[in-house]
Amino acid sequence: MTQRSTADRPPATDLQKTLAAGWFAALRDRITAAFQGVEDAAADLAIYGEGAPGRFQRTRWDRPGGGGGEMAVMRGRVFEKVGVNVSTVHGVFDAPFRDRIPGATGDGRFWASGISLVAHLASPRVPAVHMNTRMIATSVGWFGGGTDLTPMVPVAADTAHFHEVLKAVCDAHAPGDYPRFKAWCDEYFFLKHRDEPRGVGGIFFDDLATGDWAADFAFVQAVGAGFLDAYLPIVDRHLAEPWTAEERHHQLVRRGRYVEFNLLYDRGTTFGLNTGGNVEAILMSLPPAVAWP
Amino acid sequence: MTQRSTADRPPATDLQKTLAAGWFAALRDRITAAFQGVEDAAADLAIYGEGAPGRFQRTRWDRPGGGGGEMAVMRGRVFEKVGVNVSTVHGVFDAPFRDRIPGATGDGRFWASGISLVAHLASPRVPAVHMNTRMIATSVGWFGGGTDLTPMVPVAADTAHFHEVLKAVCDAHAPGDYPRFKAWCDEYFFLKHRDEPRGVGGIFFDDLATGDWAADFAFVQAVGAGFLDAYLPIVDRHLAEPWTAEERHHQLVRRGRYVEFNLLYDRGTTFGLNTGGNVEAILMSLPPAVAWP
Repeated sequence: MTQRSTADRPPATDLQKTLAAGWFAALRDRITAAFQGVEDAAADLAIYGEGAPGRFQRTRWDRPGGGGGEMAVMRGRVFEKVGVNVSTVHGVFDAPFRDRIPGATGDGRFWASGISLVAHLASPRVPAVHMNTRMIATSVGWFGGGTDLTPMVPVAADTAHFHEVLKAVCDAHAPGDYPRFKAWCDEYFFLKHRDEPRGVGGIFFDDLATGDWAADFAFVQAVGAGFLDAYLPIVDRHLAEPWTAEERHHQLVRRGRYVEFNLLYDRGTTFGLNTGGNVEAILMSLPPAVAWP
Repeated sequence: MTQRSTADRPPATDLQKTLAAGWFAALRDRITAAFQGVEDAAADLAIYGEGAPGRFQRTRWDRPGGGGGEMAVMRGRVFEKVGVNVSTVHGVFDAPFRDRIPGATGDGRFWASGISLVAHLASPRVPAVHMNTRMIATSVGWFGGGTDLTPMVPVAADTAHFHEVLKAVCDAHAPGDYPRFKAWCDEYFFLKHRDEPRGVGGIFFDDLATGDWAADFAFVQAVGAGFLDAYLPIVDRHLAEPWTAEERHHQLVRRGRYVEFNLLYDRGTTFGLNTGGNVEAILMSLPPAVAWP
């Protein structure tokens, strides 16, 4: 796909905003239901210890300055900690931000809606995963998002499946560009100070505004729905596998890399913390237990 | 003390550099010996579990571009993880850095030597602590440093003792300015996104160049030596106290704040990671076990 320049991007309409925000909330409902289904499926697996299958708890929050969101958090048996957050916020960017954000150089007004998910699994055999899609509107509108997989030890078949689904999603939609979005993901989720990738990649895109909003939105919806097709079979494959104390320790160390990435590099994290976002929602991505031995 | 402007600071001499680097290494030896003494003192305390008293392991590293350092790390019974690093590095700042560093706007050459210490204790009753002193030379020379205390639950008598010693050190040296350095510490070690301090403070100073190098150096030496007087009595006071599982959990959560500060805000960390410093040495400050529940 050829990316149009910022100047060519049309502004977002109120209907577009309503449709996007509605989709993100609906996707949240689908994902949380699916993840609770995984908890139910593991109800009799002793490797996950005692207790009832996990359930999401939802908490609404308001953003001083405009809008708010809803955190959905589950501390389950399979999902040691998973957060699925939706938010729809609006306001005015501080001056230092305006020059760095397309279409914000004028009055600095923005509107943003999105869904963000990070899952840390109890089992070191089941990869951690991240998914985020969002729509941003300043004087112009665009989409961004992606999903990436972080196994503690990469398994070739899992990596292949994850990427295969994402490639199919991209190939089925005109705005999708799998080679470019895969390369962008590899570039973005990279720990420069350690010269190592965060995981085995996925897709990442930003500034998506082809000029056909409906097509862009359909692609973003397909990424969200495709996330479940990409991830759940991997969970299912490893769900019943026992693990060793060494594997668990390795998982805690690898989670340290996840923390390093999110606090040192992740633009969503620093953007959120710098624009008065909800701290608990933003840092919900951090793993429940971590080691820097 | 009146701070002289950058333009007035004289360049550092080779002898000054040698003296400073030598002191930092000697201080490291004193501190590691003292901390091993604490391990010995706790040899019979069952609350710290099995095993022999901890001992520091030293590892040298070279910096591509010039200089290097030595990590001293102890994973003991009392000191769950403590790193005492010394380094003496030199090189040329990248262009983006030069404008932000005094005296570096010309050819960008720098020399820096220092000692940096972070201790995470096994007991949630014993505060974590940080100490760092350093000498920097570009076309001008100056000192920086400080020490701050991070109890899991503040104890008024500990806070008072820590600050009393630091005040005495400042009061005994012309370059010392306790009210200013205390306020600077409170301002620096603050988590803006959570609107909370990292701990109970201490002192912090930078750009110290009064025009009397010997007096500045004597003060920096006194801060390093005073650190032991400020901290060890607090360790001694709480060393034999048993703790609960709830206190330990609270400690792991508080350690998360320490990680957030170091990766989001700490200039030493970002400076080190951006100038090709040794990653293991820089991130030695991160706690051994952490929770974001």
